[in-house]
Amino acid sequence: MALLSRNSKYAINIIREEDLVVAKLRKEGKRVISLSTGDPAAYFKTPKYIIDAYVKALKESRTSYSSSLGIPELREAVARRQNRMYGGSLAEENVLITQGISEGLTFLNYALVDQGDTAVLFRPYYAPYVSYLKLHGGREISGRYDESRRWSIDTEHLEKTLKKTQKARRSKYLLIANPNNPTGTVLEAEVLREIVEIAKNHGLLLISDEIYDELVYNGAKFTSISSLAKGVPHIILNGASKCYDATGFRIGFIIIPEHDKVSEAIKARMIELASLRLSPNTPSQYAMVEAMNNIKEHRKAISYMREEIRKRVTFAAEMINESRYMQTVLPNGAFYIFPKLNMNRLRIRNDKEFISKLLIEERIQIARGSGFGERDHVRIVALAEKEILKQAISRMERFCRRHSKKGV
Amino acid sequence: MALLSRNSKYAINIIREEDLVVAKLRKEGKRVISLSTGDPAAYFKTPKYIIDAYVKALKESRTSYSSSLGIPELREAVARRQNRMYGGSLAEENVLITQGISEGLTFLNYALVDQGDTAVLFRPYYAPYVSYLKLHGGREISGRYDESRRWSIDTEHLEKTLKKTQKARRSKYLLIANPNNPTGTVLEAEVLREIVEIAKNHGLLLISDEIYDELVYNGAKFTSISSLAKGVPHIILNGASKCYDATGFRIGFIIIPEHDKVSEAIKARMIELASLRLSPNTPSQYAMVEAMNNIKEHRKAISYMREEIRKRVTFAAEMINESRYMQTVLPNGAFYIFPKLNMNRLRIRNDKEFISKLLIEERIQIARGSGFGERDHVRIVALAEKEILKQAISRMERFCRRHSKKGV
Repeated sequence: MALLSRNSKYAINIIREEDLVVAKLRKEGKRVISLSTGDPAAYFKTPKYIIDAYVKALKESRTSYSSSLGIPELREAVARRQNRMYGGSLAEENVLITQGISEGLTFLNYALVDQGDTAVLFRPYYAPYVSYLKLHGGREISGRYDESRRWSIDTEHLEKTLKKTQKARRSKYLLIANPNNPTGTVLEAEVLREIVEIAKNHGLLLISDEIYDELVYNGAKFTSISSLAKGVPHIILNGASKCYDATGFRIGFIIIPEHDKVSEAIKARMIELASLRLSPNTPSQYAMVEAMNNIKEHRKAISYMREEIRKRVTFAAEMINESRYMQTVLPNGAFYIFPKLNMNRLRIRNDKEFISKLLIEERIQIARGSGFGERDHVRIVALAEKEILKQAISRMERFCRRHSKKGV
Repeated sequence: MALLSRNSKYAINIIREEDLVVAKLRKEGKRVISLSTGDPAAYFKTPKYIIDAYVKALKESRTSYSSSLGIPELREAVARRQNRMYGGSLAEENVLITQGISEGLTFLNYALVDQGDTAVLFRPYYAPYVSYLKLHGGREISGRYDESRRWSIDTEHLEKTLKKTQKARRSKYLLIANPNNPTGTVLEAEVLREIVEIAKNHGLLLISDEIYDELVYNGAKFTSISSLAKGVPHIILNGASKCYDATGFRIGFIIIPEHDKVSEAIKARMIELASLRLSPNTPSQYAMVEAMNNIKEHRKAISYMREEIRKRVTFAAEMINESRYMQTVLPNGAFYIFPKLNMNRLRIRNDKEFISKLLIEERIQIARGSGFGERDHVRIVALAEKEILKQAISRMERFCRRHSKKGV
């Protein structure tokens, strides 16, 4: 009998697929520029006021298990942040604390997905969405962020797909990321309204990953699904990692705004799932209470980080657009650039070969688009300082020239 | 179509099933003595040298994602601890860091269990073992810790069960807990040897949860499975929570000592699973490096805690054994007491009714044996100070008298 489970082969995170190669190169003393993990805390120090609160919690011996649901103070702080920023009247009971959004995704797939069920995901997507779905035996119905519409969601295509596919009948949820990773799309309110309508009409639980909600720039306006989906069951995922610059804390939020039967049933099931693993890290929860409640300090920190990120992303995107081999939409959220490779001009088979060779030849680590469900693209994390980005993109350009087809 | 997945109904942690009632009582201003969660850090402050290392990591901005596998320093420290205490020549590569043992259990079940597969568990068990198995569509083959043998494992019963059951043919793993929760059993080397033999003969992956390995007393000797299972694929689960008194850190260890094909295949799959959730909490990993490497400080801390726990457990067990309504084996590991209720003398239907009524009438929270797979028992966490334990057990006795059958 086969030892490993059938579904576990889908446990792949392509963002980290080259990590072992990178580790090996570094062990050999080679300098690799890694632009593959979306980790702001590796580039911007976690703000001191948050660290201070974390230290205080430790000195006060806040080191035992917390409630499985998270400490009440943090659940309330998350609810108040949501109300403050997007309106509404959420309270502690609308929030669960998880060990990062990834744990929220496992809870959702445990709670909802049986072998053969489907869920609607939008390509290109954050790769673990589809990995977790498939780990639970689920299959994907593919919506799309459309490059020709500056990576906005193509709702007509979605409607058609849902009508066409038999699979839609066993579909459990529809998951959007806003802003999106890897495209940086900030979805417009009008598009979101259409998505809410579609989810409602098809009886799909609407899930919105809003982890980058404050990292929006270039004039774009972020709208939380919670301000548009009144009366429709929906779940918001958020957390400490990106906007609070605290990736290593492993604190995520599940926000369940509505009190209808569907919302309550899912919440109850997720509370049980949470109880199995006893609690998230306790002292980091206390740190996050201060992170969210000290609005003045947060505003300072996020303003600085957002502006820096905007500059870096814009710089990198513009530099890429000078190339004959790559072309990118200018993002207005998150910190990724997702250029299309001009394969007609390259003596390279696909994006996978592109990133592997780039790593070996130029010591630049980036991620391949096919891992996000979109071929012939690559994802670059644009968090590093300009000088580093400049060097990396110059080397990418050099690499492309070296592998270009003659005469084009 | 049903919204919730079929398997998710098994997501129940009975240890926490009365938590909402307790919260309600406390909100009403009532004082509840809760003896239901095995959380040493709620009774013994996490040692200062560990807290200091945690604070240092934070001040050095160790707040970004770590490697998915855990920081190399901690993986190495865990390997060295295992070698130091139980012999062997493990290294960094034999260890993965998880968000508590619960995450290790999810990884194992993701990696191994398809709908309809089975695994061998021993009743009474830590409840989440069976919950995670069933969440993945697995079914239990029941071995047993035998009360008539001072809760040692009945290996003859196990052999018979495996021979008898058709289910054994699709069985993936055999999971023991040593010391066991809830019985406090420390398994003797001879019994462990038989279990290794059985696992080997039936091609079952052997998993040993050794989270209480240093909390052994009353003359018992702990043997790690790694010192007996040379050449047989096996996995050891351990972590920071109990012996390092750091439950709220959420740091677990998966130790994979062997390098055979089975061990390597499972490790590779678990590394992929780990990559999906990026990393455990980062600063707490640095704290745990110091916790394990500072042997002198650890020895002081564990000696004190072990002796205190021995006294409390012994006191509570002896007090219970004075009762006509309850009887317990004296544990020699962990910090639980698992008395049998004398149902013949009580006007109470079962252990569930016993603990519910006890909570309402006497404001004592304990867990029911049936949740651990053993009816007519209750689990008491004996970590509280003697005075509290005395009060709690006195009230239990008063409760039993009030509900006793006439004339017995």
